[in-house]
Amino acid sequence: MDDQVALQQGLLTRMESLRARVDRRLAELAPAHGTAPDRLVEAVRYSLLAPGKRFRPMLTLLAAEAFGASDGAALDAACAFEMIHAASLILDDLPAMDDAGLRRGLPTIHRAFDEATAILAGVGLLNQAYAVIAADKGLSGELRAEVCARAAEAVGFMGLVAGQARDLLDRDQLRDMSQIDRLNHEKTGVLIIAAAQVGALIGGADEAAVEQVGEFARRVGLAFQIRDDLIDAEGSVEAAGKDTGKDAAMTTAVSRLGVSGARAAMEEHLAAAENALAAAGGGGLLGAYAGRLFAGRKAAA
Amino acid sequence: MDDQVALQQGLLTRMESLRARVDRRLAELAPAHGTAPDRLVEAVRYSLLAPGKRFRPMLTLLAAEAFGASDGAALDAACAFEMIHAASLILDDLPAMDDAGLRRGLPTIHRAFDEATAILAGVGLLNQAYAVIAADKGLSGELRAEVCARAAEAVGFMGLVAGQARDLLDRDQLRDMSQIDRLNHEKTGVLIIAAAQVGALIGGADEAAVEQVGEFARRVGLAFQIRDDLIDAEGSVEAAGKDTGKDAAMTTAVSRLGVSGARAAMEEHLAAAENALAAAGGGGLLGAYAGRLFAGRKAAA
Repeated sequence: MDDQVALQQGLLTRMESLRARVDRRLAELAPAHGTAPDRLVEAVRYSLLAPGKRFRPMLTLLAAEAFGASDGAALDAACAFEMIHAASLILDDLPAMDDAGLRRGLPTIHRAFDEATAILAGVGLLNQAYAVIAADKGLSGELRAEVCARAAEAVGFMGLVAGQARDLLDRDQLRDMSQIDRLNHEKTGVLIIAAAQVGALIGGADEAAVEQVGEFARRVGLAFQIRDDLIDAEGSVEAAGKDTGKDAAMTTAVSRLGVSGARAAMEEHLAAAENALAAAGGGGLLGAYAGRLFAGRKAAA
Repeated sequence: MDDQVALQQGLLTRMESLRARVDRRLAELAPAHGTAPDRLVEAVRYSLLAPGKRFRPMLTLLAAEAFGASDGAALDAACAFEMIHAASLILDDLPAMDDAGLRRGLPTIHRAFDEATAILAGVGLLNQAYAVIAADKGLSGELRAEVCARAAEAVGFMGLVAGQARDLLDRDQLRDMSQIDRLNHEKTGVLIIAAAQVGALIGGADEAAVEQVGEFARRVGLAFQIRDDLIDAEGSVEAAGKDTGKDAAMTTAVSRLGVSGARAAMEEHLAAAENALAAAGGGGLLGAYAGRLFAGRKAAA
């Protein structure tokens, strides 16, 4: 039991060290003063470097490690996925979109700066993700192009952009579970899947394993979304670090299934994630990481 | 003289055929109904497929041809640069930016549709450019990554995004010529340069020739910007197909140099462009194309 505690402690230390490494690299890859106008640089850094879980880059790094990538090989690609995620948060929060006031515990970027700066920061960050991937000399040209392609598919007209458009267009309509799943998939799932799959690719995983890693990430992402819904339904603004209760008009998993039904669905996704990871032949720290994310789930729900 | 006329006619026919080819390919590469929500798909197609000069893709195609690229090898990369250009127009026109009402002779996308759809269309189109480049199996992985890198550099915090931010931030200040040149470079030049250089790269040009092609495009772009300023200062909305007189509060080349001074600067850029193209060892249809663009310049000024 002491061994078990020590093992858990070791995993936590290692994860925290990886996350700190992502933060340091993000600070290096973000635009610096002297390039773009100061106000834009400040806005980008304000948004990108705000404390966060770094969920997507952690998936990339841990999936790469699970398949034997050399140390640091996936770091820039991992950061690119965090840039895309930060860009999508900025753009989704805009007055013309969700008109959110708080994000990651701070005023949203269009409130802290202004709307034009927010739009340019979002677009610039998305673009910077491709700049970082394309310039990643640690990867072969073929692999850089493949990572760009997977990221672009996740962002585009079958991913984040489509999901946000769909969310805005049918926000007032009653949604059934398949529509909720589709929306979650586009708005959240596709990027999480791509982040993990890119890590596996960089680690040299074969096609079947990459698919299974994608399924692992998809299930973890769905579980995570439900966990967010649970927090949103019951949590406070302080705990969530963003506006809560905003989804009340939407039809979320919680409002359809109730709290206990949503919790059961979350558990089902987590079990399926474990199975997929086992089938991929990966695991190790990646599986432990997913487990950690939901360690407090009983308290949260 | 009849030979000369026939030659000119042949060039015109060939250019028009290339432009039509770009238009057809753009229609194929644009998102189709059944992927993203219909409203977003319509907005993207409305903007991307509106009639235009296709200046950037023509530079890519003709630069590729000048260095011996096989037929069609640069077509998708060329279309990607038009997507980036269309995205930048959508975003620059937004209410939070230039708040423009007319573009390419049509209501701007946020007026014809709505602001959220316009933002998503702009972001989606930018992203689609990277999707198209990354998936271009006619190019090696190395070349796809290089094209992505050059495009991303042109868009990002040292290019279009920086230029738009700078334009908004110091719009009310008096600008000197070096500031005007820098702004033009970021807002227009960098993308034009990248479009031409990518064509030369796909054609197999060496580094020195790629640089010269960039200088050719830079000079043509500067001349073109002055031509736009001249039209803006004197032309009508009908002729320009977009809001005119909007730059009156800005300090443009025309307002600083006067009409005849601006014309002289334009001619100087065009002469330098010819020299750069000669030094690159390229030319042919690319030089003829640049000449055609300014064929009516005496009338315009």
